[in-house]
Amino acid sequence: MSVSPFDHPFLSGLLGDEEISAYFSAKVDIRAMLAFEAALAKVEAQHGLIPRTAADHIADICADFDPDLQSLKAATASDGVVVPDLVRQLRKAVGEDAGKHVHFGATSQDVIDTSLMLRLKAATFILSGRLFAVSSALAKLDERFGSNRLMGRTRMQAAIAITVSDRLRAWQHPLDQYRDRLTQEHFPLQFGGAAGTLEKFGGKAAEIRGSLAQALGLTDEPQWQSQRARIAELSGLLSMISGSLGKIGQDVALMAQAGDEIELAGGGGSSAMPHKQNPVAAETLVTLARFNAVQLSGIHQSLVHEQERSGAAWTLEWLLLPPMVVATAASLRHALQLIGMIKRLGAAAE
Amino acid sequence: MSVSPFDHPFLSGLLGDEEISAYFSAKVDIRAMLAFEAALAKVEAQHGLIPRTAADHIADICADFDPDLQSLKAATASDGVVVPDLVRQLRKAVGEDAGKHVHFGATSQDVIDTSLMLRLKAATFILSGRLFAVSSALAKLDERFGSNRLMGRTRMQAAIAITVSDRLRAWQHPLDQYRDRLTQEHFPLQFGGAAGTLEKFGGKAAEIRGSLAQALGLTDEPQWQSQRARIAELSGLLSMISGSLGKIGQDVALMAQAGDEIELAGGGGSSAMPHKQNPVAAETLVTLARFNAVQLSGIHQSLVHEQERSGAAWTLEWLLLPPMVVATAASLRHALQLIGMIKRLGAAAE
Amino acid sequence: MSVSPFDHPFLSGLLGDEEISAYFSAKVDIRAMLAFEAALAKVEAQHGLIPRTAADHIADICADFDPDLQSLKAATASDGVVVPDLVRQLRKAVGEDAGKHVHFGATSQDVIDTSLMLRLKAATFILSGRLFAVSSALAKLDERFGSNRLMGRTRMQAAIAITVSDRLRAWQHPLDQYRDRLTQEHFPLQFGGAAGTLEKFGGKAAEIRGSLAQALGLTDEPQWQSQRARIAELSGLLSMISGSLGKIGQDVALMAQAGDEIELAGGGGSSAMPHKQNPVAAETLVTLARFNAVQLSGIHQSLVHEQERSGAAWTLEWLLLPPMVVATAASLRHALQLIGMIKRLGAAAE
Amino acid sequence: MSVSPFDHPFLSGLLGDEEISAYFSAKVDIRAMLAFEAALAKVEAQHGLIPRTAADHIADICADFDPDLQSLKAATASDGVVVPDLVRQLRKAVGEDAGKHVHFGATSQDVIDTSLMLRLKAATFILSGRLFAVSSALAKLDERFGSNRLMGRTRMQAAIAITVSDRLRAWQHPLDQYRDRLTQEHFPLQFGGAAGTLEKFGGKAAEIRGSLAQALGLTDEPQWQSQRARIAELSGLLSMISGSLGKIGQDVALMAQAGDEIELAGGGGSSAMPHKQNPVAAETLVTLARFNAVQLSGIHQSLVHEQERSGAAWTLEWLLLPPMVVATAASLRHALQLIGMIKRLGAAAE
Repeated sequence: MSVSPFDHPFLSGLLGDEEISAYFSAKVDIRAMLAFEAALAKVEAQHGLIPRTAADHIADICADFDPDLQSLKAATASDGVVVPDLVRQLRKAVGEDAGKHVHFGATSQDVIDTSLMLRLKAATFILSGRLFAVSSALAKLDERFGSNRLMGRTRMQAAIAITVSDRLRAWQHPLDQYRDRLTQEHFPLQFGGAAGTLEKFGGKAAEIRGSLAQALGLTDEPQWQSQRARIAELSGLLSMISGSLGKIGQDVALMAQAGDEIELAGGGGSSAMPHKQNPVAAETLVTLARFNAVQLSGIHQSLVHEQERSGAAWTLEWLLLPPMVVATAASLRHALQLIGMIKRLGAAAE
Repeated sequence: MSVSPFDHPFLSGLLGDEEISAYFSAKVDIRAMLAFEAALAKVEAQHGLIPRTAADHIADICADFDPDLQSLKAATASDGVVVPDLVRQLRKAVGEDAGKHVHFGATSQDVIDTSLMLRLKAATFILSGRLFAVSSALAKLDERFGSNRLMGRTRMQAAIAITVSDRLRAWQHPLDQYRDRLTQEHFPLQFGGAAGTLEKFGGKAAEIRGSLAQALGLTDEPQWQSQRARIAELSGLLSMISGSLGKIGQDVALMAQAGDEIELAGGGGSSAMPHKQNPVAAETLVTLARFNAVQLSGIHQSLVHEQERSGAAWTLEWLLLPPMVVATAASLRHALQLIGMIKRLGAAAE
Repeated sequence: MSVSPFDHPFLSGLLGDEEISAYFSAKVDIRAMLAFEAALAKVEAQHGLIPRTAADHIADICADFDPDLQSLKAATASDGVVVPDLVRQLRKAVGEDAGKHVHFGATSQDVIDTSLMLRLKAATFILSGRLFAVSSALAKLDERFGSNRLMGRTRMQAAIAITVSDRLRAWQHPLDQYRDRLTQEHFPLQFGGAAGTLEKFGGKAAEIRGSLAQALGLTDEPQWQSQRARIAELSGLLSMISGSLGKIGQDVALMAQAGDEIELAGGGGSSAMPHKQNPVAAETLVTLARFNAVQLSGIHQSLVHEQERSGAAWTLEWLLLPPMVVATAASLRHALQLIGMIKRLGAAAE
Repeated sequence: MSVSPFDHPFLSGLLGDEEISAYFSAKVDIRAMLAFEAALAKVEAQHGLIPRTAADHIADICADFDPDLQSLKAATASDGVVVPDLVRQLRKAVGEDAGKHVHFGATSQDVIDTSLMLRLKAATFILSGRLFAVSSALAKLDERFGSNRLMGRTRMQAAIAITVSDRLRAWQHPLDQYRDRLTQEHFPLQFGGAAGTLEKFGGKAAEIRGSLAQALGLTDEPQWQSQRARIAELSGLLSMISGSLGKIGQDVALMAQAGDEIELAGGGGSSAMPHKQNPVAAETLVTLARFNAVQLSGIHQSLVHEQERSGAAWTLEWLLLPPMVVATAASLRHALQLIGMIKRLGAAAE
């Protein structure tokens, strides 16, 4: 299906991002959830909570278990989460003996949030690389055209002359800061059990959580099942990235309209006016910036997360965060492409 | 791909809606766009603007033309709209003679907005039917339990006793009003040409537009390429529907927590606590209400639609409106299911 | 205080609106709330529920009762609503005998929502007049410059030539539709009592509600204490008005930057560049459009209004709706001023 | 005027915050803007750009200059910013000789953004103190009731028993993190001149900017006139604070409804039901959380800040940020009050 342009057979060419979208496929999500179950079993065996042979068998099955998607879909419709049915299917595949040791002490949210963190960690690494590429491309523009003159414009009016470097710095500087911020993000394990207390593990809880985090390459932190600041924080950063790229897009579109301060190679075609060259990438940057700014509001609504774990607030995140990540990825892609299309900026100083 | 839960292999079981999502598939969109091109050619032939044989041939090809999706995707990425490549492919399929008469006098936005209106008209009809079903189900609840007592609650505190009827009226009344509103919605043709002036048709423009609207079963109105009030209007109505259903969901979830005022059959399972019955549909109604409330903000941002046609503002609508329609459809589906699960409401008066 | 620019000693010159803000003053609100209490007493006396002399006395006192604001403020801080303390003060002013008949059968929300409706009714009348003024001013521009040529622009690029009339129609048409919509708005009494059932009035409830509505010049409707669609509906309309005016502002700002298609008298001064003429009114229209688009999201969040009456959702409306009304009023004011500043649009056809 | 409840004679008792609102008064803003002009003159004299006697005279006048507010208001209405008229009035007060040295090399945005930073720095210090107070109050609750039993609730349903400590940690932990974040915020000078290049200062620009930052107690950074990430960053943090407090409020309201897990002293009165104790502070926390979540969307829309300085995007910040700061302050105030009202949490373990 293709309700969202991010998933659409042809609109995703413009608005989607294949590399990043892959992390939000059911397949990669399932692999990450099974990696959680496998690591959990292994860690529990290390701490003597379940038999080592059961853990090894669970991990073996998890490695290439391919759950029935129709069953997962039907079960998610009534359970509100995929995990109960996934665990049921997995237990069946594992067999009666080891099956009862699957998912011991964990809850659905542990599996789903941890899968999200594993995937966001990977996606963020790619976004960080793209930020570097865009920043470098801007630096190269600066080398080529930095000393050219540009009319500085304030309140949509010509103000005083500036250099191309002046404007490029306003474009590039925030991106470098965002990259530093992205690099500092950490991605914690979610592990709290039914109501956040890891009640099945007694005094060993913190130790087991630490081992599990290490096994999965995530940060060890107390559970954050109802504390969603990290989701809000990361979403805010994504929206800042697309927002600053939207500013670049807006500036380019305004230059392209004025006509003499920028020369662009390529541009989009028109069905009615074959001669026209539309600054499509520039406009798309504005679109994606406004899209993320809108979604962020819902992420912050989700901070009002009731009691130990909320269905309503948590599910709202699912609808909002993956599109924000992909919108940010697409805006980085368009920014890089747009900068590459710039053949001239400003006018050579006489 | 499945960035959005509305399109997701298993999350769509909970959050998506198959019947309504179909209208946002690439396939149905393409069929509607080709219906526009076919009707345009026929109408233009009727008015003597293109040869009747060419029009007949165009319409024949449009009836089962299957464009190359990879080409559409690549072209959309650079053109920002699918239409230039779709028309190019269609012209090629039609052949050299008739091909030059394809899409005469129209622009991309005419095709895309009209396709949207054709599909929204059909989707709205379904939503209207579901509103009726939900309202009827509430009326039946009223028949069964209306005279039962319920504690009226204000500011989250017990206030005074009311009847189940009292609360059900607050649930049902808005839905009946929305249904009236949906029924009154009209779905206009978009037809303005390159910059909204139908400049290729001279004095015959209004007449041709009228014929085209009639051929497509849409309302005849002057072009609204940069006037997006009808999109905002319909989106607002969708968000009001999901908002009022979210109120029902919230009320049911609160009753389910309190425990003695409602009896629900079924409910969602938990991976950690097999005994639990979660009011998943109730929570999902809250989620979808908040989701639509968030998206609506972006639709209204799109009203700042610059000049004759904006790329940035228009594309933002594409990202927001289809998910809103599907969220509304899913919330109607959940509401109907949730009402069907109610085995008792309130307490029998003594 | 002046946290909001709408209330600010100097920023309100730009962003506020004195005429409309007056309706949101504490003074006018108190007068409207006292009008409710006076009318309620009179109607109850007519229906034999309270002594006529008590009602007359209550109405007399209400006519010029001036409550202690510091007390209202302190009480609102703990009660969450002003009404309990206002009623307490009023009862004291009315005296022991008649005092006990004050506010009989009503609840805080009845008073506050009804006061809001009385004031919105008046404010909407003014907004409607301003819409007419803006539309008329656009019609006059059309008479003067309609036949001038303008470059039609799509996707921020020159497309094909249009006339000034073509663009003006896209500006004016939505405003005329909004005015029709505003004229059709109706403003209902809120009257439900403690939990919406008017339980103090038995079989006479509907009759008394009808009399009260008539006395206050409002529409008679069953209580809508937890059904906030009319708030969402009106807010949506306000945001559509400011949104379409924001489109005009954006277009003017873009024309002013391009420089040759519009000639504006006046404009804002700059502290750094005394020669500059900034299209301040045009930019402010964009600001106010985006402001309202943002607020609307919160109004729709408020539709999830729990149980018979919610504190949380209802209070959110208070924070959002008055600023939206004033932003709309200010945008109409700026639009009228901006149109008045246009000395030329487009270029005379040769 | 009192369009916004934050500024309202009686609603501000509930929703406003006197201590923090003071920083957004015109008076404090003017004092901060004059502090900028005084420091600028002094620093420019130190660097030999203007006569020392002129600078001393300017600083003397700035110390107690009281501008004509009506003139500021009228001028802001047409200029879009207050600074041109403020500088004009100040120059007149300073007299002809020194007057021409006032505001040398600066632009309106330098003055306004710097005034904002000075005031946000002070306001943030207070918010940080309140966060500490709320966190300490939660720690004391934990000491008193931490070992009590509480029903852990997930998806609005009873799950398994937890302790009061378990829930309190989910309330307190985010607040401690926000406090660390607030403490790390830095508040930079804005100083860029007409188009961000400090073109009046040549090679001395950076040195003068550094001196000016030091004189005002702000961080020295290159101008950020069109780079609004720090506004978005701080706004996001404010919304996270109110969001996490909203979660506490929601939890308390749900406990108060259930009735046996919390005992609250006080609570709000009702006009219809004098016996009721409404958890007003708890509900208000939810309201303020949702309010800030809504506003944040607009702050991120403002990141699309066109060219060197935007009127439209910048002015939108003015409408959104001060209310967000006050909403956060009010939510901290309510949280502290609410925690103080808790007489018991959970049930003593047997």
